[in-house]
Amino acid sequence: MPKRISPSSTGSTIPAKLEGRSRVVIEHVTPEIDGGEFPIQRVVGEAVVVEADVFGDGHDAIAAQLLFRGPQDKSWRTISMQPVEPIGIDRWRAEFHVERMGEYRYTVEGWVDPFTSWRRAMKKRLDAGQEVHVELEQGGALVVAAAKRAKGADGKRLQEFAARLNAAQDPAKAPDASAAAIDPALDTLMQKYQEHAYCTRYAKELLVSVQRPLAGFSAWYELFPRSTAPVEGQHGTFKDVEARLPYVSSMNFDILYLPPIHPIGHAFRKGKNNAEKAEPDDVGSPWAIGSPEGGHTAIHPRLGTMEDFHALQAKAKELGLEIALDLAYQCSPDHPWVKEHPEFFRKRPDGTIQYAENPPKKYQDIYPLDFETPAWRELWTALKGVIDFWVAEGVRIFRVDNPHTKSFPFWQWVLAGMRKTNPDVIFLAEAFTRPRLMYRLAKLGFTQSYTYFTWRNTKQDLTEYLTELTQTEVVEYFRPNFWPNTPDILHEELQRGGRPAFMSRYVLAATLSSNYGIYGPAFELCENRAVKEHSEEYLDSEKYQLRHWNTEAPQNLLTLIARVNEIRRTHPALHSNRGLVFHKTDQDHLISYSKTDHEQTDCILTVVNLDPYNTQSGWVTLDLKALHLEPGASFEVHDLLTDARYTWNGERNFVRLEPGRAHIFSLSGRR
Amino acid sequence: MPKRISPSSTGSTIPAKLEGRSRVVIEHVTPEIDGGEFPIQRVVGEAVVVEADVFGDGHDAIAAQLLFRGPQDKSWRTISMQPVEPIGIDRWRAEFHVERMGEYRYTVEGWVDPFTSWRRAMKKRLDAGQEVHVELEQGGALVVAAAKRAKGADGKRLQEFAARLNAAQDPAKAPDASAAAIDPALDTLMQKYQEHAYCTRYAKELLVSVQRPLAGFSAWYELFPRSTAPVEGQHGTFKDVEARLPYVSSMNFDILYLPPIHPIGHAFRKGKNNAEKAEPDDVGSPWAIGSPEGGHTAIHPRLGTMEDFHALQAKAKELGLEIALDLAYQCSPDHPWVKEHPEFFRKRPDGTIQYAENPPKKYQDIYPLDFETPAWRELWTALKGVIDFWVAEGVRIFRVDNPHTKSFPFWQWVLAGMRKTNPDVIFLAEAFTRPRLMYRLAKLGFTQSYTYFTWRNTKQDLTEYLTELTQTEVVEYFRPNFWPNTPDILHEELQRGGRPAFMSRYVLAATLSSNYGIYGPAFELCENRAVKEHSEEYLDSEKYQLRHWNTEAPQNLLTLIARVNEIRRTHPALHSNRGLVFHKTDQDHLISYSKTDHEQTDCILTVVNLDPYNTQSGWVTLDLKALHLEPGASFEVHDLLTDARYTWNGERNFVRLEPGRAHIFSLSGRR
Repeated sequence: MPKRISPSSTGSTIPAKLEGRSRVVIEHVTPEIDGGEFPIQRVVGEAVVVEADVFGDGHDAIAAQLLFRGPQDKSWRTISMQPVEPIGIDRWRAEFHVERMGEYRYTVEGWVDPFTSWRRAMKKRLDAGQEVHVELEQGGALVVAAAKRAKGADGKRLQEFAARLNAAQDPAKAPDASAAAIDPALDTLMQKYQEHAYCTRYAKELLVSVQRPLAGFSAWYELFPRSTAPVEGQHGTFKDVEARLPYVSSMNFDILYLPPIHPIGHAFRKGKNNAEKAEPDDVGSPWAIGSPEGGHTAIHPRLGTMEDFHALQAKAKELGLEIALDLAYQCSPDHPWVKEHPEFFRKRPDGTIQYAENPPKKYQDIYPLDFETPAWRELWTALKGVIDFWVAEGVRIFRVDNPHTKSFPFWQWVLAGMRKTNPDVIFLAEAFTRPRLMYRLAKLGFTQSYTYFTWRNTKQDLTEYLTELTQTEVVEYFRPNFWPNTPDILHEELQRGGRPAFMSRYVLAATLSSNYGIYGPAFELCENRAVKEHSEEYLDSEKYQLRHWNTEAPQNLLTLIARVNEIRRTHPALHSNRGLVFHKTDQDHLISYSKTDHEQTDCILTVVNLDPYNTQSGWVTLDLKALHLEPGASFEVHDLLTDARYTWNGERNFVRLEPGRAHIFSLSGRR
Repeated sequence: MPKRISPSSTGSTIPAKLEGRSRVVIEHVTPEIDGGEFPIQRVVGEAVVVEADVFGDGHDAIAAQLLFRGPQDKSWRTISMQPVEPIGIDRWRAEFHVERMGEYRYTVEGWVDPFTSWRRAMKKRLDAGQEVHVELEQGGALVVAAAKRAKGADGKRLQEFAARLNAAQDPAKAPDASAAAIDPALDTLMQKYQEHAYCTRYAKELLVSVQRPLAGFSAWYELFPRSTAPVEGQHGTFKDVEARLPYVSSMNFDILYLPPIHPIGHAFRKGKNNAEKAEPDDVGSPWAIGSPEGGHTAIHPRLGTMEDFHALQAKAKELGLEIALDLAYQCSPDHPWVKEHPEFFRKRPDGTIQYAENPPKKYQDIYPLDFETPAWRELWTALKGVIDFWVAEGVRIFRVDNPHTKSFPFWQWVLAGMRKTNPDVIFLAEAFTRPRLMYRLAKLGFTQSYTYFTWRNTKQDLTEYLTELTQTEVVEYFRPNFWPNTPDILHEELQRGGRPAFMSRYVLAATLSSNYGIYGPAFELCENRAVKEHSEEYLDSEKYQLRHWNTEAPQNLLTLIARVNEIRRTHPALHSNRGLVFHKTDQDHLISYSKTDHEQTDCILTVVNLDPYNTQSGWVTLDLKALHLEPGASFEVHDLLTDARYTWNGERNFVRLEPGRAHIFSLSGRR
C-alpha cells in the first residue's frame, strides 16, 4: 500500500519571511551599470528609458510599473510600464524625466493582474457562446474588491458594474452582465484601482546622477593666459584674458578652459620646444606646478591676483562663458608640499624624492604623488582641499590632468563627495589610456572625458567608435568630449591636410559629440607645424614658451566656428548623442550621420567630405525609418551653413563637397 | 596672498575601514549570471574558465589570481591568471576543474606587482645604458622583503640576489648587480614569494552548481509502460517493462523515462484520440493523476506494486539504465488531495473547484494547484513531499511536466533544497514556452530543459538557435535536451518526410546536443501518422489508449540509434555543447558542424542532409582553425557510421548524401 504524504513529512523549512505568492519575476533591468554598482549619468531635463523582463508562471496577465524618486521626493513616483514590441517577449518599458540635480533612484515592480486575465478569458468565452454566469460572478468579486479601494464617484460606478456582473444568474440579465464584463469603462476603472497583490519589487534600487545641462552639452575653448598679451614677448595676464573674452564669446563657446594658473617650478625647468635645459627667461611648463610662491591654491604672480581672477570670472559670466581650471595633481620639486608634506612622495634609497619616469625617459621636473603612502588619508584630504579651495573661489568646472595615473579609490571618494555637496561641479577627465580605465573613471563620477576621436579619421574608424560610444551601455555613463587638437596633440591629419582638414575635423567634433572643445587660437588659425616629422607635438609649443597669435589672420575659421556653435545651440538634436544614426554612403571619403532629439521634433543630418585635398561626390543612402520619413517621400533639406535648400527624394540622394566641406542639414517633412 | 591649504581644511571624512591603497580594480567577471544571483552549472570533471577585467591606475604591472573552493574545501585554492590576447586589453583568464558534486565558489583577486614593474623598467634603463645604482638598490629592497617571507633554500637565494643588487654602488660590482636584476631565476623566485600588498578582491563570490556526469551527457528513452504487454489489448505492467529493458539497453540509452505511473482519475476522463467522453474500457491519460486508489505517491494498480517498481529499477541498473519518473503537479477531480486539502485548489463562486482552462477550451479532468492559496506553505511542503517520497524509493531523475505553470519561487526553494540534500537528483524541465521563462527555470536549478529543437528544421534556424544556446551566456546555466518527438509533438517534418526525416532529425539531436531523447517505440518505428492534418498530435495517441508496437518492423532505426549512442559514449567531444562550431556549406540542404572537447583531444565533424526526399551534394568549407588543422593540410576523416575513410585536403571538401543520411566523422591529423 503506497504511503500517503502529508504536509509535515519533509524536514525542509520555508524561510519565515518569504511571501511565496509573489509569482512575478523581474530580470535584466536596463540601464544597470555593473549590477547597479554605478549610477547612470543624465542632465536636468533628460529622459531615462527603463526596460525590464517582467513575467510570471503560467498564462496570467502581468502588470508592471516603474518607480523613481528624485533628491527631494519623500516617496516613490510611479509610471505604468508597457510591453515592448514584439508583444510576447516579456520585455516592458517606461520612461521618466529628471528635473533636478542630484541623485535619482529607480526600480521596477510587477504583479499578476487578475482582472485583465479574467477579462481576456471572458472575451474568448463570450465569442465561443459559452454559458458564463459563474465566470461573470468571479469577475464581480474582483470588481467588488476594487470598489472598496475606490472613493466617491469611482467607487459608486464600480459598485454598479459589480451589481450587473453578479446578476448574471438571472437569464434575463445575463446579456447585460456580459456587456458589462467587456465594457472598456470598467477596464479603465479597474486599472485605476487594481490591487498590486503579491507584488514583486526588483531587488535593487538603481541610481541616476543628474547634473546641470552644461555637463551634457558644451563647447570648450582652451587658451594659455600667458599668450594673450597685446604686445609680442610680454607675459599675458588675467586682464589680457579679460580683453580676449569677447573674441571667444563671439565664436559662441560656453567654457573657457585655462591650463594651470599656478606658480611654476624652477628646478629642472624645461626650455623652449621641451629643451632639457631652460634659458633664464624661459617661462616653463604650467604643469610643473609649485614654487616658493605657492602650490595648487596659488596664482602665478605674473598672471595676476585672486581679485583679477574673480574679475575675469565675472566678465566671462557676463558674456555667457564659464571659466574652467586645470586640476593637475603633481608637483614641481619647488612645490611647498615637498617640504611640508614629504610623506606625500615616494623616497628613493638615496633619500631623494622619486621623480616621474617613463623608462628610459626621466621627468625630473615632476614629482608624482604617492597613492600608496601610509599617509594616504592625509594626501586624499589635501587633494580634495585643492578642489574645495577653488570651488570656494567660484570655480565649477575642472579639466583633470591624467586622472588615470591617480588611484581609482581616491576618485571614487572625492567625486561621490562632490556629487553630494556640489552637484553642479563638472569634471572633464583628460585620460588618453586603455578603454577600461577610461570607462571606469566615468563610472566613478567624471562628468565628461577626452576620447580617441583625435585618432579616428576614416569613415570606418569613426563609425565603429561612435557606435561603441552611443549604441552600447557606454552611452549611459560615459560622456565623450571630442577635441580635434590639444596642446599635446597635433594629429598628422591636421599637419598634412591644413585648413580643409581643420574644417572637417571641426564639424565632425561639433556635430558627432554634444560636448567638444578646441585648443585655440592654434586651432582656428589652422596652426599645423609640428616640432618634427612623425611627432604630434607643436613647433614652438605654448607648453614651454609664450606665443603671440594674430587672430585676424586670413586663414582663420571664426565664421565657421561661430555658425556651428550657433546651430548647436538652436538645435536640440545636437544636445545629446543618443539619437545618432549613421547613413550609408557609396564611397569612403563621405561620411553621413543624423541626430534626432528624444522627442523626435528636431533632426540634423550631416555629411562631411573627409578628404582635405579633393572635391568628393557620391550617393548617400538614408535610413528613412530612423529619420521618420516615409519611404519614397520628398522632403526639404536646409543647409544651415550655406542657407541653401534642396528637395530630396527617397533614400538615395547625391552630394558633392569641396575639400573639407560639410553639409549640416535641418530636415523638414518628417512624421 | 593665496591661502595655503592644509590636510585639515576639509570636512569630508574618509570611511574608517577603507584601505585607500588598494589600487586595483576588478570588473566584468565572467561567468556571472544576473550579477551573481544564480549559479552556473557544471558536471564533475568539467572546466570553469573564468575571465575578468583587472587593472590599476598608471602604468604599474598588475598580477591576478583566481580563487575557488569546492564543497569540502576549508579554504580557497588559487590559480594564477594570465592576460588574454591581445595583451593590453586588461582582460585576464584562468580555469579550474570541478571534482565533486555540490556547490563551488569562485572569485578573483588582483594587486600591483612592484617587482615586475621594477624589472620591466630596469631592462629599459639598462638598454639605454643609464647609471642605475639607486634603482638597483630599490629592487634590492623588494628582494630583501621577499627573502623574509621565503623559507630555507629559497630565502637564502633571495638574500644572495639582494646582496648583489645592493652592491651596485661599487662600480666594480655594478655589472653583476645589473645581471642579477634581469636574471630569470630571480623573477621566478620573486613571483613565488610576491607580496599581495593592498590586494583587491572582487566583491562577489560566484557559484557553480556541480552535478553528476549524467546531468551533462545523457540519452533518454521514453515509453508508456501500459503499452508493453506482450499481447495486444492487454494493459502492460512493470514486469512487461522489465522484459523490454534489454531492447532499450541494446540501443545504448542511459535513461528510461516513464510517463506518470499513478492512479488515473475517472471524472471527465478523456477517450481515445482525446474524445470528450471516454468509453467504459478507456484507460485515460496518465497525466490526469489521482483516484480513490491514491495520488502522486501511489502506483497505478494495473502497473504493479512498489516491489515491482523496485525490481524494475534493479534490473534497469544491471543493464546500465536509470529509471526517470514524471513529476506532473496537477490533480484529477478524484485525487485524494481534493478532499483532504481543498485549500490547495481555487474555488469558483458556485463552490466547485476551478478546473484547467485555455479559454474557450475547458479541461475539466484536470484541477491545477493554486499557488496563491493562503495555504501555500502547506502546498509547497506537500509538493516537495512527493519528490522526497520518490527519492526515498530510489528515484534520482525526474522529468517535470509544465514547470512554467507552477510558481518560480516554489521551484527556487525546492531545487535549492535538493541541491543541498541530494545533489545527484536530475530535473528535466518540460517547458515549451517563451525564452525568458525557460531560461529562468534553468537559473533556478533545473538540470536540463526541453527546447525549441523540434521546430528548428532549416539550416539557418538550427544554426541561429544553437548559436544562442552555445555561444552566449546561456551555455553557462541552461542545458538543452533535444527531442525530435514527444507524445505531444509529431512535427510536420516527420509526418511528411517519413523514415529519412526520422534519421536526420535523430542524428541532429544526438550530435548537436549532449543531452537528447526520443519517445519510443513510436520514434524508432518511424510512426508518422497524425490525428488530423496540421496537427502535431499522434493518431491513436498513447496518451489516451494502449498501443501494441512491433519493434521488429523492417523500418526500425535500431541499428542507427545503437551505433550513434555508442559513438556518443566513445567520443568526449560529444559530451558537452561548448565546443560546437558550424562550418559553411554551399547549399541549404547540407548542414555541417563540429564538436571538440575542452582538452582539444577529440573532434567529431558531422554533415547532415536535411532533405528527406533527395540526394544532396555540395562543398563544405571547414573552419580549419577551429578544427586545429593547418591551412592546406591533408587529413583523414573516418565516418563512424559506415567505417569509410576519406582523405580530405584543405578547407573545401565535397560531400554527397542520400535522403536523411549523415556523416559522423572522427578527425585525425590535428595539431
